[in-house]
Amino acid sequence: MEPILVRQCRFALDPVEGVLRDVDIYLEGGQITCLGECSGKSGTIIDADHMVCMPALYNTHTHAAMALFRGFHDDAILEEWLQRVWRAEKRLTPGVIHEASRLAIMEMLSSGTAGFVDMYFYPEETAKAAEELGIRALVGPVMLENMTSIDKWAEETVRLAKGLEKLKLVKPIVNVHSLYAAPIEAVEKGLEIAGEIGVRLQMHAAETRREVYAVKQRYGKFPVEALRDAGLLSQRVHLVHMGWATSWEYQAVAKAGATIAHCPVSNMKLATAGFLPLHDLQEKGVTVGLGTDGAASNNVLDMFREMKAAVLLQRHSYWDTRVKALHVLRAATLGGAEIMGVRAGRLKPGYEADLVLLDASRLHLQPLRPDNLVSALVYAATGGDVVYTIVAGRAAYSPEKAEKFTEEAARIAERLNGFFEGEV
Amino acid sequence: MEPILVRQCRFALDPVEGVLRDVDIYLEGGQITCLGECSGKSGTIIDADHMVCMPALYNTHTHAAMALFRGFHDDAILEEWLQRVWRAEKRLTPGVIHEASRLAIMEMLSSGTAGFVDMYFYPEETAKAAEELGIRALVGPVMLENMTSIDKWAEETVRLAKGLEKLKLVKPIVNVHSLYAAPIEAVEKGLEIAGEIGVRLQMHAAETRREVYAVKQRYGKFPVEALRDAGLLSQRVHLVHMGWATSWEYQAVAKAGATIAHCPVSNMKLATAGFLPLHDLQEKGVTVGLGTDGAASNNVLDMFREMKAAVLLQRHSYWDTRVKALHVLRAATLGGAEIMGVRAGRLKPGYEADLVLLDASRLHLQPLRPDNLVSALVYAATGGDVVYTIVAGRAAYSPEKAEKFTEEAARIAERLNGFFEGEV
Repeated sequence: MEPILVRQCRFALDPVEGVLRDVDIYLEGGQITCLGECSGKSGTIIDADHMVCMPALYNTHTHAAMALFRGFHDDAILEEWLQRVWRAEKRLTPGVIHEASRLAIMEMLSSGTAGFVDMYFYPEETAKAAEELGIRALVGPVMLENMTSIDKWAEETVRLAKGLEKLKLVKPIVNVHSLYAAPIEAVEKGLEIAGEIGVRLQMHAAETRREVYAVKQRYGKFPVEALRDAGLLSQRVHLVHMGWATSWEYQAVAKAGATIAHCPVSNMKLATAGFLPLHDLQEKGVTVGLGTDGAASNNVLDMFREMKAAVLLQRHSYWDTRVKALHVLRAATLGGAEIMGVRAGRLKPGYEADLVLLDASRLHLQPLRPDNLVSALVYAATGGDVVYTIVAGRAAYSPEKAEKFTEEAARIAERLNGFFEGEV
Repeated sequence: MEPILVRQCRFALDPVEGVLRDVDIYLEGGQITCLGECSGKSGTIIDADHMVCMPALYNTHTHAAMALFRGFHDDAILEEWLQRVWRAEKRLTPGVIHEASRLAIMEMLSSGTAGFVDMYFYPEETAKAAEELGIRALVGPVMLENMTSIDKWAEETVRLAKGLEKLKLVKPIVNVHSLYAAPIEAVEKGLEIAGEIGVRLQMHAAETRREVYAVKQRYGKFPVEALRDAGLLSQRVHLVHMGWATSWEYQAVAKAGATIAHCPVSNMKLATAGFLPLHDLQEKGVTVGLGTDGAASNNVLDMFREMKAAVLLQRHSYWDTRVKALHVLRAATLGGAEIMGVRAGRLKPGYEADLVLLDASRLHLQPLRPDNLVSALVYAATGGDVVYTIVAGRAAYSPEKAEKFTEEAARIAERLNGFFEGEV
């Protein structure tokens, strides 16, 4: 892999140290090895005098292949929508998952995302697509009690983890859907596996009032309470949504060192009405990442738009402006990197070379200065402003690839639309 | 002006009648004159087989020239931010307003907006910029009691209206800031003028709790109540925000036939915590448009992103999904057109030729079908997907203009940044 010299970047943002102007950035062996004046270095040159450089973003919760269901009856009544999706999901094949995953991954790469935490069917297909396209991913089969048994799922999880060993960018994660769609014993078994292979366990938790009620009925406790009391809340646990948890559950999360994926757009679009107390949790030292959730409930995988939505939801819900652009920028970069298990999220030598270059000349970013750069990236930019996404030192998205991605997406879209023939 | 033939548009959306496939659209004399099979027509041809066509959007509340203040200390404490903006506003000149307005208008045109309702200083400069660039606008001097007198402002309003008579796309509007920053007598005088010249009166109302409290202290009534009881609520009144009004005030708005601008992003970003009951108002027959507010509190003028934010805010606040993509799409097109006083918002012969063409091949819109088109436009698209914005039959934004806009924006941004020298 040839090194990359990003030359004379107009603005370079590190989420901790701030903004630098007109710097070079050198990427070698998958890492950032020079920042500042890096002349004399050889490699592929990217002239970045009209670009902003920042660490890439991580999508800490998605169902990538659900790109298939983007806009599919998504404004119907929830029950009708679910019925239709479930009926269609029965017809899913590895081939459809592979194509829908490629579509989702191309969208993620083209909008500045360097890695994602996934939960969906046929995870080996999503893994394959991720490795092909050069994006980081955590994948694993989902434990859903009406579809599989704990033993069968555990076996598949271990087998997939084994199979992923030869991949460079894709790692396993243990996926338990939730405490309302899987028994707590699955979490117990899952954490055992997670400990053995050294990975996290991902589960939905406290997303809706309906779920909290169901768990309370089943276990006499709220979801995170139930986990904690069973000794199943640890730093290996990655909790998704968490908009309807109690103060003592958030406290328990902080104490255990569990991580959280905040999915503001999905929560709002599905009218869950809950919201994660992002600021309190960050203050308590909890690692929070942002997630788009699946395209069926978003309907995009654009982490730039997700950052803005996070601030908007937080401010509307708190009735104050305590959550700032920088808080969500850190969640999407540093927080996401930590959840993914990657030493990244910084623009600093020694960190993994996961970077985004954005076009600083876009109309909606003007006038752009060092003092309003963070604001521009969070409140004004979209994934559409991304020119390069570099993952582990390789340009996984670039102007050259943009056209190829669009062409492939058109071919995939045509085939995916065939999947719905007679259903829409 | 040469006619335009939009040929073989892949999908064409009318907000009332729905989706058509592979249709031609012919624009002549500023109007849509053919939809369907329009072969044999001559004019500028736009091959649209990879495009979606829909009515253009109208931004029913903005402070265009505040593009100058995009990201300017916008995450500081409100008071500090306001102090800084007010201090800087004292140094505004007609030249700065003209340039900042051009920047804002280029951004609006490039993101599918065909018209906007403005409220800011030096409105004659914004008018000039709008006419130059070919966008519709309603402008007028602002009545603010600490800056002018009713007589002086009334005189300026009439004079500007006179001056606008020779313009084609820009019309006057009577601007009273609000009941907390202007006396109710200004509204009385303003409505007199509005009646004489046949235009609307725009004012902020019920945006924040602080404002409602101030008006209650001053008049013993809530803002809309105060207007109604003084006989000042009519179909000429355009109320902006309205997130903190009472049920009887909404009822009064419906009865009077006043219109409303809903600004979801601004309301959330400024943590006003209020929200407009969009669905109830639409059910009551109230004409509601969407607005971005100024770039200082958004921070973009992208009506596509505003549509999505409207659904998200509504669903999060109502705890249900009653507000659908189509509701906000209609507000942004039909609602906006009515507020602007333009017979537009439809894709139908006889309507004004205000159209948007979007690139249907974008990754985040796939897979795209007639059944998920509205969902794609509201939940997935951004202004960045716009390829053409046609205003009154003229391509005010096009691929040819995109580059010129970017170059001009860079020049303007440099000069506007000079404006802040020593302040940031």
